[in-house]
Amino acid sequence: MKDVVAGIDIGGTNIISGLVDKSGNVLAEERLKTVEFPEIKDYISAQHAAINSMLERNSGHRLVGLGVGAPNANYHKGTIELAPNLAWKGIVPLAKYFREKIDVPVIVTNDANAAAMGEMIFGGAKGMKDFIVLTLGTGLGSGIVVNGELVYGYTGFAGELGHTIIVPGGRECGCGRRGCYETYASASGLVRTVLNLLSEMRAESTLRDLPPSELTSKIIVGEAEKGDRIALEAINYTAEMLALGIINAITFSSPEAVFLFGGLVKAGELLLAPVRNYAESNVMPIFRGRTRILPSGISESNAAVLGAAALAWNELKK
Amino acid sequence: MKDVVAGIDIGGTNIISGLVDKSGNVLAEERLKTVEFPEIKDYISAQHAAINSMLERNSGHRLVGLGVGAPNANYHKGTIELAPNLAWKGIVPLAKYFREKIDVPVIVTNDANAAAMGEMIFGGAKGMKDFIVLTLGTGLGSGIVVNGELVYGYTGFAGELGHTIIVPGGRECGCGRRGCYETYASASGLVRTVLNLLSEMRAESTLRDLPPSELTSKIIVGEAEKGDRIALEAINYTAEMLALGIINAITFSSPEAVFLFGGLVKAGELLLAPVRNYAESNVMPIFRGRTRILPSGISESNAAVLGAAALAWNELKK
Repeated sequence: MKDVVAGIDIGGTNIISGLVDKSGNVLAEERLKTVEFPEIKDYISAQHAAINSMLERNSGHRLVGLGVGAPNANYHKGTIELAPNLAWKGIVPLAKYFREKIDVPVIVTNDANAAAMGEMIFGGAKGMKDFIVLTLGTGLGSGIVVNGELVYGYTGFAGELGHTIIVPGGRECGCGRRGCYETYASASGLVRTVLNLLSEMRAESTLRDLPPSELTSKIIVGEAEKGDRIALEAINYTAEMLALGIINAITFSSPEAVFLFGGLVKAGELLLAPVRNYAESNVMPIFRGRTRILPSGISESNAAVLGAAALAWNELKK
Repeated sequence: MKDVVAGIDIGGTNIISGLVDKSGNVLAEERLKTVEFPEIKDYISAQHAAINSMLERNSGHRLVGLGVGAPNANYHKGTIELAPNLAWKGIVPLAKYFREKIDVPVIVTNDANAAAMGEMIFGGAKGMKDFIVLTLGTGLGSGIVVNGELVYGYTGFAGELGHTIIVPGGRECGCGRRGCYETYASASGLVRTVLNLLSEMRAESTLRDLPPSELTSKIIVGEAEKGDRIALEAINYTAEMLALGIINAITFSSPEAVFLFGGLVKAGELLLAPVRNYAESNVMPIFRGRTRILPSGISESNAAVLGAAALAWNELKK
């Protein structure tokens, strides 16, 4: 019998699960629609069935652990707490429910922490003790590793870099405050920057012909690649703000590398080159040249499952 | 024979050393003048003699470790590197030099990290796994503990919260950049805020009668206690900026407590009450009510020696 773990990524729309062996091979994958399970117990049953089905299709494998990446997850308690994008209200004891069905260690944390663990076990951070992963999607998630361990903090919710305030009194944030890092350094931050530049600059741009509600980071990156001045300036400003949060994080934990993951990173060197320039020019002198800024070493297609599975593999190593 | 360690605090003016037992009793103390030892080897010899003298005065005690708090100290390498306020230039292999004289473990780190270790072993952070110490002097130093260990990072220089940028483009900092936390939240930051308010406000104030070069945080706190409006407003703004850095640090590592140490904390509740109010009102909602903001539990008179000694005791526990 070969050992495998199940990695589960719970999102507002889809729940993806997979069986992953110790080398990071994804042997099987299953998808569930989150909205089809307004009752948590129904989801647990369906997920249990999906895992059993994957195990049946992979005979000769034994399940030894379960890792779950989920929004508002509390690592210490194995719970999902007050997640705004899920139907399961209040405090959901997810690990406990899974343990009632499956007798293996169950680890629960948020998706950015899972991404960091995926990077450490299967990606570009192999062998690193101190690194940070930033996931640049609609918001900005972060997973921080210090001394080889994920930082969960006293509450279990540590590592919310997207909500460090980098511009006091700045842009309104979904968290109810102003000036949070993710309001500048994320896909939605890039869109907001374009809207601001459409007011500040006089340059012609096809971005003026779209309703703001239809603007996406993908469209902006596409226009930048064609030379659109406003799109280029917006990416440059986003890089500057992304770098500001990175140099502050370096000041805190002095990581060996910062890995960037998610949709916005598809802009490639158009974004990464100015991020590296700003970070290197503006970081505190003693940290200069000491932190690499790299794209994630995990391919986006199965990153979520690999990250969640890595949580379980890491726990089993202890 | 009872075990003791030596704690050494190296500053630009004085070098204070002491023998400390496991319970945090300071059995003896010695002082050296930093400027009297332009050659590092002469200092090592003098320090060795001072330690031997203290041991002779405390017969029945055996030295089992040496902890050193020093500016620009690299924990990983046991070195002091490019310290601007010391005569010893370049990279000084301090731990190696001590080990040539004394065959016990030697731990070297910066003074704020030593303060954090003192808080954990002998002060208010006993039993805590996640906490931060901010030392509010001329600048702002920080020691960060995550999962029960000091955060040194890849370079050994982690935990420089005084140099996180909290106001992009803000006040000039001694590090050559702008808007660093310590340019607002420190004794010198408080003085700068008074100078700014003397320009912004029309209120009468005895602070208008002093040359700016003679203004100190102590004078300002004294005037605030007498009801001076500009001094009170300056303390309030300093509290707000101190709280801003604290809520960003909470977002990073979600500590159980943040301890404040150093001269500025003598302002007492005049400073602490608004810091707590601003932090609580402005921290990200999931962290609300979860981090205590406390004055240090170590008395200032022997904090430096206790902190350095705690480094050694902590290492010996491993």
